Amino acid sequence: MNRLIQNAPLKGIIPPLVTPLLDNDTLDIKGLENLIERLVAGGVHGLFILGTTGEAQSISYCVRRQMIEETSRINNKRLPLLVCISDTSITESIKLANIAADCGTNAVVSAPPYYYAPSQVELAEFYLDVAERLPLPLFLYNMPSHTKVNFAPETIRQIAENKKVIGFKDSSANAVYFQSVMTAMQDRPDFSMLVGPEEITGEVVLMGGHGGINGGANMFPELYVNLYNAAEAGNLQEVRRLQRIVMQISTTIYTVGKYGSSYLKGVKCALGILGVCNDHLAAPFYKFEEPEKERIRQALEKIQTAL
Amino acid sequence: MNRLIQNAPLKGIIPPLVTPLLDNDTLDIKGLENLIERLVAGGVHGLFILGTTGEAQSISYCVRRQMIEETSRINNKRLPLLVCISDTSITESIKLANIAADCGTNAVVSAPPYYYAPSQVELAEFYLDVAERLPLPLFLYNMPSHTKVNFAPETIRQIAENKKVIGFKDSSANAVYFQSVMTAMQDRPDFSMLVGPEEITGEVVLMGGHGGINGGANMFPELYVNLYNAAEAGNLQEVRRLQRIVMQISTTIYTVGKYGSSYLKGVKCALGILGVCNDHLAAPFYKFEEPEKERIRQALEKIQTAL
Amino acid sequence: MNRLIQNAPLKGIIPPLVTPLLDNDTLDIKGLENLIERLVAGGVHGLFILGTTGEAQSISYCVRRQMIEETSRINNKRLPLLVCISDTSITESIKLANIAADCGTNAVVSAPPYYYAPSQVELAEFYLDVAERLPLPLFLYNMPSHTKVNFAPETIRQIAENKKVIGFKDSSANAVYFQSVMTAMQDRPDFSMLVGPEEITGEVVLMGGHGGINGGANMFPELYVNLYNAAEAGNLQEVRRLQRIVMQISTTIYTVGKYGSSYLKGVKCALGILGVCNDHLAAPFYKFEEPEKERIRQALEKIQTAL
Amino acid sequence: MNRLIQNAPLKGIIPPLVTPLLDNDTLDIKGLENLIERLVAGGVHGLFILGTTGEAQSISYCVRRQMIEETSRINNKRLPLLVCISDTSITESIKLANIAADCGTNAVVSAPPYYYAPSQVELAEFYLDVAERLPLPLFLYNMPSHTKVNFAPETIRQIAENKKVIGFKDSSANAVYFQSVMTAMQDRPDFSMLVGPEEITGEVVLMGGHGGINGGANMFPELYVNLYNAAEAGNLQEVRRLQRIVMQISTTIYTVGKYGSSYLKGVKCALGILGVCNDHLAAPFYKFEEPEKERIRQALEKIQTAL
Repeated sequence: MNRLIQNAPLKGIIPPLVTPLLDNDTLDIKGLENLIERLVAGGVHGLFILGTTGEAQSISYCVRRQMIEETSRINNKRLPLLVCISDTSITESIKLANIAADCGTNAVVSAPPYYYAPSQVELAEFYLDVAERLPLPLFLYNMPSHTKVNFAPETIRQIAENKKVIGFKDSSANAVYFQSVMTAMQDRPDFSMLVGPEEITGEVVLMGGHGGINGGANMFPELYVNLYNAAEAGNLQEVRRLQRIVMQISTTIYTVGKYGSSYLKGVKCALGILGVCNDHLAAPFYKFEEPEKERIRQALEKIQTAL
Repeated sequence: MNRLIQNAPLKGIIPPLVTPLLDNDTLDIKGLENLIERLVAGGVHGLFILGTTGEAQSISYCVRRQMIEETSRINNKRLPLLVCISDTSITESIKLANIAADCGTNAVVSAPPYYYAPSQVELAEFYLDVAERLPLPLFLYNMPSHTKVNFAPETIRQIAENKKVIGFKDSSANAVYFQSVMTAMQDRPDFSMLVGPEEITGEVVLMGGHGGINGGANMFPELYVNLYNAAEAGNLQEVRRLQRIVMQISTTIYTVGKYGSSYLKGVKCALGILGVCNDHLAAPFYKFEEPEKERIRQALEKIQTAL
Repeated sequence: MNRLIQNAPLKGIIPPLVTPLLDNDTLDIKGLENLIERLVAGGVHGLFILGTTGEAQSISYCVRRQMIEETSRINNKRLPLLVCISDTSITESIKLANIAADCGTNAVVSAPPYYYAPSQVELAEFYLDVAERLPLPLFLYNMPSHTKVNFAPETIRQIAENKKVIGFKDSSANAVYFQSVMTAMQDRPDFSMLVGPEEITGEVVLMGGHGGINGGANMFPELYVNLYNAAEAGNLQEVRRLQRIVMQISTTIYTVGKYGSSYLKGVKCALGILGVCNDHLAAPFYKFEEPEKERIRQALEKIQTAL
Repeated sequence: MNRLIQNAPLKGIIPPLVTPLLDNDTLDIKGLENLIERLVAGGVHGLFILGTTGEAQSISYCVRRQMIEETSRINNKRLPLLVCISDTSITESIKLANIAADCGTNAVVSAPPYYYAPSQVELAEFYLDVAERLPLPLFLYNMPSHTKVNFAPETIRQIAENKKVIGFKDSSANAVYFQSVMTAMQDRPDFSMLVGPEEITGEVVLMGGHGGINGGANMFPELYVNLYNAAEAGNLQEVRRLQRIVMQISTTIYTVGKYGSSYLKGVKCALGILGVCNDHLAAPFYKFEEPEKERIRQALEKIQTAL
């Protein structure tokens, strides 16, 4: 099975799944099944769970474990499965990785410990320790707005000397930075360079990046797959056409709320309206009330017309 | 026992204990016993565990639980015991609080969820939920450098309408902010106003604050207790004299390393040299090597002369 | 005249004067006269012009020059006069300093160039250059929220090796930082340690600092002078009583607007209502409209009752 | 002449010229002539002076004025000329714009006032005032790392209702943000969308942006012109080939120094070595010493081989 991703680099659209919840402690398993079937049908290239979009930090370890097991069961090895093990405790991270390995997933993904902000030297030392102890290949995950630390390109290079480290996901939105990492890793064609924000998947792939871990694909998997394919094929006109819809989603669904949580609330609310899964958000966030829901509903209608 | 802190406000020096470790996953129980006896003998007014100084986020839940149980056992109700339950998951926080309650501790302390940064509205809603479910009184803990969010004074006021919320610890180092919270809470004389950074405990108490949760007290409990007493008594000359030693510690022991982790490394290294406990730090940090250790040794000698 | 401040350290309340304006380019000279007489009558220990409260960066060089000349004329050497020469161009800074010297002012004050953020090494080199070329003694001014750079305590020490550098104003609000600078300069009893935010003048003076450059003194000079005197005398009870009024001002007058400009708008609006000077603010800010003005009016009434 | 840019949108590579200096107050006019001839010969699409790369904030108004006059004279209307008038004082900004108009330049560019950080509401009001008073068309310039404020896409839209506002330069490096502004302005095909960092000019143009204000074009104008042309033509293979050289410059020339000033120092040092102009930097920066200069020399050699 690991062949699926050891023919590195992993490429394409790998949606970061929301974690469907009935309440803070109960997985919405029916919703998760719907979601995965929707994604498989939509042609995505892999599944990524327990990331930022997956509210992993807000749910208990018990639910995180269950999410790994259930996703693995439902996916049934149809798609490469990546499990995010970001944690502030190395011990808990490794435990999650072992669970992931036991469930037959393909790789793990890790953002830096996010309470204490380590220096670059500490970060390198930490990840060399982590990689040593991991049962699976590792993607590094850059998420400075949440972790308060940015992987220096040179640090990534240093960590990737351990061949278990097979890729990088950047959610910084900083395209200069992404290019710097591309440059630092240019002699490693097997190293997967993926981007978080869907608003820049098109351009990243045009420039030689490998794909996107794009939250919007929870709602509209084909759109992002088509965008990826158009970019991969160098079809600029089609990229720009699809980009307009991607931006329509970004500037409507993700901006209904007033806070940083708008994106998460918007995606879950939309999935609820689309009948995919429950729209419950784990604390410290709370789902949209009816007025916001109505705005999401209207935005969805316009997007479906555009699609 | 809870009388000890329900005669609010809690006052004095409540050291945030380091978590003595033999390795990432093993508590140094003998070291913990030494540390607690040192603190009790030093006259401190309470114990605070699993805070930032206690590396709580870096150790596993299993070790966190053990730290609560062992501290509780060793303390044996001699001093009020506060347990920090900060976590990104409300479920895990409540679990820790229940363990703390079962062990007979007096109160819990919580900093905001530190992965997703909630807005003030979400923060208030979150803590009103948390307080509802807690088996023990709650101190709010402001730590914006690590959590990326600052409690607005009005948010604290709003949360403290739940009478379980009995105090506030501020580690922002922003003295204007501290005064704003003092003002927001001025009609609540029972509400405990404590400060994190020991460099400002003197002035905070002079202005009417109630004390400090000061990491340096792990090493030199009497110094901080004397500083508190001098400030409480309005003895300015003595406050300034002791402040010079506090600043000597701050500008030597805490500045040997090059990174943000210097403080943690310095305290643990010093405790190792003083024979109190092991100097192991949990990942993503690593203890000082010999050259830094030598600088800590020399700094300690000068401080002991000054004391 | 320079005796007034060369018997360093300069102590007490030195209000940072607003720049009274009729419009963006016209000084309200009558208003400036009223303001200065009010301050002299209020017993302040010096005058500070063209700082952050003085909107120096928003007005033209022509008006800045006129402000120096007029203040100097009206003050007529009654009080030590400090002129802030902060600029992004060293040439323009030195020009302003020469104008200040020609007008017989006592010292200049400078915050780091605020467009490009220099490193500590560059900052030290820059200020050693500046000091060399200055015709007057220099106070360093720390204002990280506006300049994006913090003077490291060691950098201050290094710059102050030039004996023209006679003091420091800190507007960081970070009391730990202020104590670190106090410690770095502890062998320089002639070096003046002043604080910007009036909310912490009391505690800073209690801990051995020398006074405050407090914007609220534009409105209520006696209040801040009394606070300073009480702190200097170690009268804790009186400090705390006055502090409550200082905080009442801070949490009402300065919080009427929604943006960072609330403080500036509040002070100028209050001075307008008190009949001291015009309430015009230079672009990019704009004075309060009637609804906000009414709130300021009501806040002023309550403060005047408390005084 | 203004036809040149009123056939909006302005497109292509418009280098932000360094300001060649003999010392802090003396323009290196011969150097400026060399530089402009080099750029014209290199095929660039316009000239942009007194921006961040031009150290405008560090030089006096007198030198800024001279830079406008000399550039205008040397250019002699061969290329569209844009003059950056960013200042903290609206009065000084308008003065610079009037000088620019008198010299026959084509447009002005303005970043928000950079001492006080205005809110979005204040920013919109400010720029509507500015636009009203300007004698020339205006480009907005987003430079949040230096100005502490980001133009919200909606604010740009609002300001651009004044038809004098004809374009936008974004130096945030945030590609998601750039796409959001593209979307906000999508019904304004005449509005020029330009990017600052050369590391992303390729992808921005591929996605429909109009070009780059790229500092590296001071050194190698043809490279960036070729990159622009390849992107404009949709020649992905050539874009990627040239991008590798762009990144080589970015990761060598711009990273020799240890501070944020590395980029400025690197460009000026390289221009000195290439014999274009003097390598003096205005305070608070200082030119490279021999060891750094040697590293720049070696980097240049490798780049010239790659070209």
